[in-house]
Amino acid sequence: MDHARSIDKDTTLCISLAARPSNIGTRFHNYLYNELCLNYVYKAFTTTDLTAAIGGLRGLGIRGCAISMPYKEDVIALVDVMHDSASAIDSVNTIVNEDGVLHAYNTDYQSVANLLRDKAVSTDQSFALAGSGGMAKAVAAALRDAGFTDGTVVARNEAAGSALAAKYGFRWVPTLDTTPDLLLNATPIGMDGADADRSPFTDTAVNAAQTVFDVVAKPPNTPLVRAATEQGKTVITGAEVIALQAAEQFELYTGVRPSAEQIDRASEYSRAV
Amino acid sequence: MDHARSIDKDTTLCISLAARPSNIGTRFHNYLYNELCLNYVYKAFTTTDLTAAIGGLRGLGIRGCAISMPYKEDVIALVDVMHDSASAIDSVNTIVNEDGVLHAYNTDYQSVANLLRDKAVSTDQSFALAGSGGMAKAVAAALRDAGFTDGTVVARNEAAGSALAAKYGFRWVPTLDTTPDLLLNATPIGMDGADADRSPFTDTAVNAAQTVFDVVAKPPNTPLVRAATEQGKTVITGAEVIALQAAEQFELYTGVRPSAEQIDRASEYSRAV
Repeated sequence: MDHARSIDKDTTLCISLAARPSNIGTRFHNYLYNELCLNYVYKAFTTTDLTAAIGGLRGLGIRGCAISMPYKEDVIALVDVMHDSASAIDSVNTIVNEDGVLHAYNTDYQSVANLLRDKAVSTDQSFALAGSGGMAKAVAAALRDAGFTDGTVVARNEAAGSALAAKYGFRWVPTLDTTPDLLLNATPIGMDGADADRSPFTDTAVNAAQTVFDVVAKPPNTPLVRAATEQGKTVITGAEVIALQAAEQFELYTGVRPSAEQIDRASEYSRAV
Repeated sequence: MDHARSIDKDTTLCISLAARPSNIGTRFHNYLYNELCLNYVYKAFTTTDLTAAIGGLRGLGIRGCAISMPYKEDVIALVDVMHDSASAIDSVNTIVNEDGVLHAYNTDYQSVANLLRDKAVSTDQSFALAGSGGMAKAVAAALRDAGFTDGTVVARNEAAGSALAAKYGFRWVPTLDTTPDLLLNATPIGMDGADADRSPFTDTAVNAAQTVFDVVAKPPNTPLVRAATEQGKTVITGAEVIALQAAEQFELYTGVRPSAEQIDRASEYSRAV
């Protein structure tokens, strides 16, 4: 952060808790605090004692806390109020401290729901959702709550996949053999690393789809996103999910909603490391 | 703080806990972090739950914590290791978190002891110490541990004054009627406010003394200090006590000892609010 910064006794602290902290949230929030002249500071933490860390939110009056893997479920027992976005998927990624009362939200769920709405994805579309982890749960719940009914969860892991599908009223298949209108990826396929060159869906499925939604953010330009973009499909990327969920967190912590352009710049800045 | 500042996931947090936080510590430490290019950030907090706040030090891996009124005694039960400077006066003003083990110190005691040594105040001098509160305790313990034996505690409050004197092996009097070599003030007399124009010692006592030590820091230029300076006595001021104790804290947290000139500048900067 190269902006001038003034920390004083009245500066409000927001933090994150993750097994492996990254710089993304720290850079995103501090960028916007500077941009918007808010007397806040943000800093990522890890912990070996989640109960003590959450107690610290109360004891120190820390205003907000982003919750990452692997604490999103364990933290439920430690908060005071579970809001709909968190209870819909039994998973918390955001805590807001209102005078010692800890309110829990899930802005991943919220941002997926908002993107489906803002991109005007029709709930008449059939969909296939690849994945059965925490993010797949957020996507499945957002789809159900938006009114999507014709859905298939695609997951190799039968136990996790069929449980997720059943919980939200969809089908489960181990391998997709239909061509749905909407393809959603909530697996790590396409992410930097061993799976960077792979796509979670076949060319046939992508060719037949109208809309593609990939939650992978590093990089947002996955093979799936590239193929869909080349073919002129409606595309929603993981960069949009991350930026929107961070903006939701930002607004919950500060009460200020950054402009779309500010979010874009903060988001770009946050990933430039 | 007008310096550029870069906070990232690896930035180390140090804090303070006080019923009424001031900006002094925050400005002092952040000034030196910038000056010395240390990836640290400092922020003052208050709390309504000391146990949870100290648990938060452990849970969040906060490196250091300055403890102010009214927590200096209560915090003893919450730390793991009491070092000599804290156990000498049953009072903690500094906690250092070494991999989850909380070490407790009292840098007020330490800085008083170091100033008596550095200014070469002979332990043969008789002394009078005005006051019976927490700071008077730190001064009395430092005098005893340095080897001073001929001492009088001057305090209107008989219970507190005589207990303090007895604890460290000195006499107690309600009003000073002798002319000791060394006069020490650990009362608020001379501090900004109702007692700003008063001195804790008579002109006769000041005229007869060789050395004057005033712990009042706001302002350091008290009537007592001014009178002693005009008469060419050896003078130790509250500004020196505060700067030195903060430097001790700084070194405990960071392992880095700022130069005397850096401490002076940070100290001046910290009070310029």
